[in-house]
Amino acid sequence: MTENARRDERLALFRRTFPFWDKMAPEDKETFLRSSREVHFEKGTNIHNGNECTGVILVKSGSLRLYLLSEEGKEVTLFRLFPGEVSVLSASCVLDTLTFDVFIDSEEDSQCVVISGCAYEELSRRMPEAKIFALEGAVASFSDVMWVMQQILFFSMDRRLAIFLLDEASKSGSDQIRLTHEQIAKYIGSAREVVSRMLKYFASEGLLRASRSEGIVLTDKARLRALAVD
Amino acid sequence: MTENARRDERLALFRRTFPFWDKMAPEDKETFLRSSREVHFEKGTNIHNGNECTGVILVKSGSLRLYLLSEEGKEVTLFRLFPGEVSVLSASCVLDTLTFDVFIDSEEDSQCVVISGCAYEELSRRMPEAKIFALEGAVASFSDVMWVMQQILFFSMDRRLAIFLLDEASKSGSDQIRLTHEQIAKYIGSAREVVSRMLKYFASEGLLRASRSEGIVLTDKARLRALAVD
Repeated sequence: MTENARRDERLALFRRTFPFWDKMAPEDKETFLRSSREVHFEKGTNIHNGNECTGVILVKSGSLRLYLLSEEGKEVTLFRLFPGEVSVLSASCVLDTLTFDVFIDSEEDSQCVVISGCAYEELSRRMPEAKIFALEGAVASFSDVMWVMQQILFFSMDRRLAIFLLDEASKSGSDQIRLTHEQIAKYIGSAREVVSRMLKYFASEGLLRASRSEGIVLTDKARLRALAVD
Repeated sequence: MTENARRDERLALFRRTFPFWDKMAPEDKETFLRSSREVHFEKGTNIHNGNECTGVILVKSGSLRLYLLSEEGKEVTLFRLFPGEVSVLSASCVLDTLTFDVFIDSEEDSQCVVISGCAYEELSRRMPEAKIFALEGAVASFSDVMWVMQQILFFSMDRRLAIFLLDEASKSGSDQIRLTHEQIAKYIGSAREVVSRMLKYFASEGLLRASRSEGIVLTDKARLRALAVD
């Protein structure tokens, strides 16, 4: 790709990502371009490590996993980012009131554009829309994370669903489960929305596939069993 | 108090609370005044219930407890608000990306000023500073909440500290424990900061008193025991 084509592609990506792009002054756009770099992360690379200010990360391909990490090395996955999504939790210098440490790994080979935290912070001091974009992203993450926390703290819903799915597979002698989310919710005493969301979470963890055509297919029963006995 | 004195007091409270107050247009200030009301909540009153838009709550006296509540009635305390502090999580209409349900009770008789969510939302659409204030408050809460979650998920630090304190009291035959936070951290294999923060959390829960002069005094061993066996 020529230098110009790369520049045009980067500009188009910024316009798609930032709702305030068209309001930015030309010199701010240039600063954003100069302060960003395209990075390829191999599968399994640690991209962000606690409270440093890695910057705002735009995912072009692949996927990133955000998680908490204890001193003993225990991890809790918070959520994942996919192509078109943006990580603001990795730009702690933009978010003064964000004080906890989050870790980010690339879960697949991932192509990303990273904008320096300093450049974003400098813009957001002058342009409230940029500040609001970052803050709203963080609050959306707050909501995602609280959903996971509630499932773990209150319901052991991961555990209950894992037990139910393994029981079903064992009863029917097949790893394919043809029940609606509504039916599963009734069996485990939950709501359809909760089951759907937890199945999506399991699918993103690689424990199963869920689709309208084939129903639910368990793809990693060993890890489901580990969840079930946890 | 006369009507005018009440008005002046309310204006002074708003000026202290909102960093953007002096930039507000006079008619917006009047709208804020008209859209706010002083409320006395008796100890134990539920003030906010899930995802309704109760509004922005300013605590004048007393204290509020924010918590998650499961369908089965299980609670997890997230944090508390004290005089001078502001609840923005109760104004979900201001925070579009905040989608989880938080509950708020007054833990003591509490005097509060509640600003209607609609009025705040309407202002924040025109005044980015107001939007940023609410979002930054939510992100600060995110940080507080993640700290609690990490302690519960990773370390069972509440449990470990409760066990240690009960053991110490039992060994010495006294409910007063004269160890530094540093010493306790070494005993339970943690960091001083973590111990200090967890002791503060325990103190706010009424489980103990902690001060430089008397050290740590266990005030509710029954509940500490319940934590220790949890």
